[in-house]
Amino acid sequence: MTLNVGVIGVGMIGQDHIRRLTQVLSGARVVAVTDVDLNRAKAVAGELAGARIHENGQDLIGDDDVDAVIVASWGPTHEEYVLACIAAGKQVFCEKPLATTREACERILDAETKAGRRLVMVGFMRRYDDGYRAMKDTIARGDIGAPLMFHSAHRNATVPGHYVSDMIVNDTCVHDVDIARFLLDTEIVAARVVKPRRNSNAADHLTDPLFLLFETADGAIVDVEASINIQFGYDIRGEVVGESGTVELAESAAVLVKRAGGYAGRIPEDWRERFVRAYDRELQEWVDAATAGRSTGPSSWDGYAATVVCDSALAALRSGERVEVSLREQPELYR
Amino acid sequence: MTLNVGVIGVGMIGQDHIRRLTQVLSGARVVAVTDVDLNRAKAVAGELAGARIHENGQDLIGDDDVDAVIVASWGPTHEEYVLACIAAGKQVFCEKPLATTREACERILDAETKAGRRLVMVGFMRRYDDGYRAMKDTIARGDIGAPLMFHSAHRNATVPGHYVSDMIVNDTCVHDVDIARFLLDTEIVAARVVKPRRNSNAADHLTDPLFLLFETADGAIVDVEASINIQFGYDIRGEVVGESGTVELAESAAVLVKRAGGYAGRIPEDWRERFVRAYDRELQEWVDAATAGRSTGPSSWDGYAATVVCDSALAALRSGERVEVSLREQPELYR
Amino acid sequence: MTLNVGVIGVGMIGQDHIRRLTQVLSGARVVAVTDVDLNRAKAVAGELAGARIHENGQDLIGDDDVDAVIVASWGPTHEEYVLACIAAGKQVFCEKPLATTREACERILDAETKAGRRLVMVGFMRRYDDGYRAMKDTIARGDIGAPLMFHSAHRNATVPGHYVSDMIVNDTCVHDVDIARFLLDTEIVAARVVKPRRNSNAADHLTDPLFLLFETADGAIVDVEASINIQFGYDIRGEVVGESGTVELAESAAVLVKRAGGYAGRIPEDWRERFVRAYDRELQEWVDAATAGRSTGPSSWDGYAATVVCDSALAALRSGERVEVSLREQPELYR
Amino acid sequence: MTLNVGVIGVGMIGQDHIRRLTQVLSGARVVAVTDVDLNRAKAVAGELAGARIHENGQDLIGDDDVDAVIVASWGPTHEEYVLACIAAGKQVFCEKPLATTREACERILDAETKAGRRLVMVGFMRRYDDGYRAMKDTIARGDIGAPLMFHSAHRNATVPGHYVSDMIVNDTCVHDVDIARFLLDTEIVAARVVKPRRNSNAADHLTDPLFLLFETADGAIVDVEASINIQFGYDIRGEVVGESGTVELAESAAVLVKRAGGYAGRIPEDWRERFVRAYDRELQEWVDAATAGRSTGPSSWDGYAATVVCDSALAALRSGERVEVSLREQPELYR
Repeated sequence: MTLNVGVIGVGMIGQDHIRRLTQVLSGARVVAVTDVDLNRAKAVAGELAGARIHENGQDLIGDDDVDAVIVASWGPTHEEYVLACIAAGKQVFCEKPLATTREACERILDAETKAGRRLVMVGFMRRYDDGYRAMKDTIARGDIGAPLMFHSAHRNATVPGHYVSDMIVNDTCVHDVDIARFLLDTEIVAARVVKPRRNSNAADHLTDPLFLLFETADGAIVDVEASINIQFGYDIRGEVVGESGTVELAESAAVLVKRAGGYAGRIPEDWRERFVRAYDRELQEWVDAATAGRSTGPSSWDGYAATVVCDSALAALRSGERVEVSLREQPELYR
Repeated sequence: MTLNVGVIGVGMIGQDHIRRLTQVLSGARVVAVTDVDLNRAKAVAGELAGARIHENGQDLIGDDDVDAVIVASWGPTHEEYVLACIAAGKQVFCEKPLATTREACERILDAETKAGRRLVMVGFMRRYDDGYRAMKDTIARGDIGAPLMFHSAHRNATVPGHYVSDMIVNDTCVHDVDIARFLLDTEIVAARVVKPRRNSNAADHLTDPLFLLFETADGAIVDVEASINIQFGYDIRGEVVGESGTVELAESAAVLVKRAGGYAGRIPEDWRERFVRAYDRELQEWVDAATAGRSTGPSSWDGYAATVVCDSALAALRSGERVEVSLREQPELYR
Repeated sequence: MTLNVGVIGVGMIGQDHIRRLTQVLSGARVVAVTDVDLNRAKAVAGELAGARIHENGQDLIGDDDVDAVIVASWGPTHEEYVLACIAAGKQVFCEKPLATTREACERILDAETKAGRRLVMVGFMRRYDDGYRAMKDTIARGDIGAPLMFHSAHRNATVPGHYVSDMIVNDTCVHDVDIARFLLDTEIVAARVVKPRRNSNAADHLTDPLFLLFETADGAIVDVEASINIQFGYDIRGEVVGESGTVELAESAAVLVKRAGGYAGRIPEDWRERFVRAYDRELQEWVDAATAGRSTGPSSWDGYAATVVCDSALAALRSGERVEVSLREQPELYR
Repeated sequence: MTLNVGVIGVGMIGQDHIRRLTQVLSGARVVAVTDVDLNRAKAVAGELAGARIHENGQDLIGDDDVDAVIVASWGPTHEEYVLACIAAGKQVFCEKPLATTREACERILDAETKAGRRLVMVGFMRRYDDGYRAMKDTIARGDIGAPLMFHSAHRNATVPGHYVSDMIVNDTCVHDVDIARFLLDTEIVAARVVKPRRNSNAADHLTDPLFLLFETADGAIVDVEASINIQFGYDIRGEVVGESGTVELAESAAVLVKRAGGYAGRIPEDWRERFVRAYDRELQEWVDAATAGRSTGPSSWDGYAATVVCDSALAALRSGERVEVSLREQPELYR
């Protein structure tokens, strides 16, 4: 009952998922890989006993030995591969984004809805983090009353050279958007973006930091500080304010050290360190579900909503105005 | 070298200052009191050995035995008494607000400027809090780089029955406005206000919570969550985000208790508990300065700026739009 | 390259290791089980596709399909099975204790030394905990100077009905003994035990709490508070005091909740919750090492030292006196 | 109703109390000073408007203008001055120790008992600290059940050059002894002292650190880590372990700073910073009580018990054995 997984795209994140499946998790093996760079695919396959190399994603998806697929290729290719998986009736784990345009996401919703069952899980790994799960449980238990606000801060020490300005919304804040939807269990209906004074550590072409302000369907407010060159570490903060209490992420340091006039705890270096367990759980849960023929986790609808909200935030950033978010009606399948 | 203080207004806050001067602090005594309710003035004076009762504030200010004056009467009366103190050349500690309108504040600025020396201190006690002082010191040392954002949360367990809607800005958030100006050392130039979903614990006539968003002259952003019926306690949070670090208020609990599945620290019940030391220090510093014939602390300019910013925030709340804050040019005296 | 594991003893801990190998970890499968209660063995095997049931541990160890063995049976049986594994040249993961007497441990040391290579890993899972690892790293980096003291607290909410008095040393504090040796990288040479006032929540036959005081070969002090009926949760505290600093375990709560006058974090319910990741890592590391034909983790020597120190602590508890710990000379194999 | 205070001994601590009375607290003035170094007395008096200089403590105590006395001279002189104050019927605040020998303390007990009313308060300022008070309140409310153990740590960054070895017990740990008696509300009946490995930062003549272990009359255990050259700051830790919970001092940092890979809070530099408020409250409470003709705070009995316990601890340090503490029967006056 081992799940045979094919991996499309074996760059950094694809290789990390392969490592996870082969060295960390239970119940899966990687039987096929492909990549836009076939040499890279060959190099990765060489490390895996008996993994086949495919010329392209379509061939990999069509391989009868492949039970389920991980899509970790370049964003603009996601739509094609996810649609092919749906057509083939194979469970697919698609790294964010589900697709890069609203229209592409909608085509996926249509295809999956037509297929009549969920086949797609989107890689919003924060939903598998101990902290956010405990926040959601706290809200669900009614410990803080109905949620009214969510304050989120997304702080990166630095960003790589290829990082461009839209990525602060599409790649960085998309996680805050998804986790806000998850925690508050409602849709985002409007976005505003304010540009604070620039961080002089940021590259000239980047607008950093940003302050995003969202409204949800039930009137709650979500504010997101995005600071992508804050130097000191990868610092993810979150607090939900309810009618009679609040719940916030605790610091994650395992030890406190006293020396030189103070006590101190470590802040993670990057997202790998901060969310390592969330990534592990996310993929294990997908493997378990796919093996059992079930769907789980963030759906195509979640991927679609995140893309549309980010589009609206980018429009708000450009116009300086409040921009409404319009989602199509949610299909029965995702309720 | 004991400072002879006269107190105008002996309601709750006036009585608290009298208690402080007579039982807690050093170097002052209360020699005269007055109140709109003369019976209350008599009752309070009865507790004080040898304190005179005046018919009104003007008489008290004119009393030759009174070295310095505390104005703790109803807000709309502040202008008159502060102007009289300036005219008499007596140091005056005026509870917030300095005055209730921009024009009244400007008349005070004019009078004090004409007098050629600072005689007015406004009661923004947060500037004397250990936490905010350490935040300011941290910024001044350059430990977090240039400040880009200030996140503030002002949470009251409940508000009294006489609390009306404008007070959430004028009486509550005015403290966040002042401390933002103090921490960031710049003026606020624009205000926006967003209304999250209502807290069902709030009285029907109150708009609670509010989310205020300010811009400063140098482009920093200040966001303020005001939650005035949050039930669980008086919770004052603040974090300044700089280019390379952040500084935030620590929790103030003196002990942690482990029992029944968790560890817990106390949150203050109200502003008296949270800021007791700040009030003590504020008034001691005023007594020491007044005794030495010096001025200290938040100035008329600070009181003026706070009033104008709050006016703009109220306009923003009503219009739903961004409202610019326009201050007159700052007189030399306050630089 | 999947490791075929046989499990001797399928009670609670044995079943938990089977769950871990089959549902959580990578690279192993359970091919054989046995138990003193054969019906229990059959029930467990029934859940495992293709696992063989053996009449006894010796048969299981002799099974050619079994690559490596987990010993999770009753303590007094450990010696026999570990010796058989050594004789068969198979890697064995032995739950603590390595053996229940000093002499039995020494027979294992002799056998393994004679075999000329390490085949035994003892289940001291705390060495795989993030917190203790960070403590050890902090010491190793010299951040707190040379370690002088280690304060440890081992607090259980309650203990099961079959718990008898010696278990507070042999089953509970043995973890503190091992982690002290691990953190301080030295041997314990003397023990004293003090009996505080009894906890009235403890069953009549239990001496609870205890306060243990150890000395190490290099003169450091280790004190252990053992409270086994403290009601509120499973609370593991540890702090190493060095010449110029300290390092302590941080609280492990993932979120802080503010409500009803305070802020609070969760304390784990039991050792499963607190050390779940340590158990996972411990066994994954053993699987990886066994697959590669390497040894890893706490050795027979560590198991031996822990048993001898606990024996001395029990003698100290009975006599009320300081009792010296005498270890045989450490064989080359374990240095 | 200002209290006229005479101060015997105007070294560092005496001058600090004078500063407190004249610049910080309410209701007292310093009208007379004396010192073994009369020039120092003159210098200090020169700063005080109208303070008289006395040749010696006896003259100061006999001065009719002196309502109450602070004894802040060298320890061996305390007995004489305290006895003279009792004879004169004047309230006396005596810095610790009450007296340097058991016999001297007993003569004070005898004199005060004969006087039939409490006149002596001993300067154990920790009893006025927010943290210890909250610990005591928590225990009194029954929140943690009956107390079974108290873990205390007393860490000094460094000690001055004149510090000799007995002072680690008599001057440093005496505070832990007193606060243990205060928190647990019982007497200490036995002492043991263990010497960990030496801190290489300590001067050659100092035994640092020490680990002290006390037993109380009701069977609770008190352990005290004394580290007097720990470099990093003045770190006072305390935790009371009860039958169903614990209560511990929280860290005292006012802000947390995130920078350079971590978050950090300040640890106080020395006892002045850590206990500034406790000193203020202690003396204000004495002034208020003395003005009202009442007694308050730590009594002669508390000073006596602390001295006897420290004597026993020193004997235990020298012998390496458990030493019993024997107190005389407590006079009615102190119950």
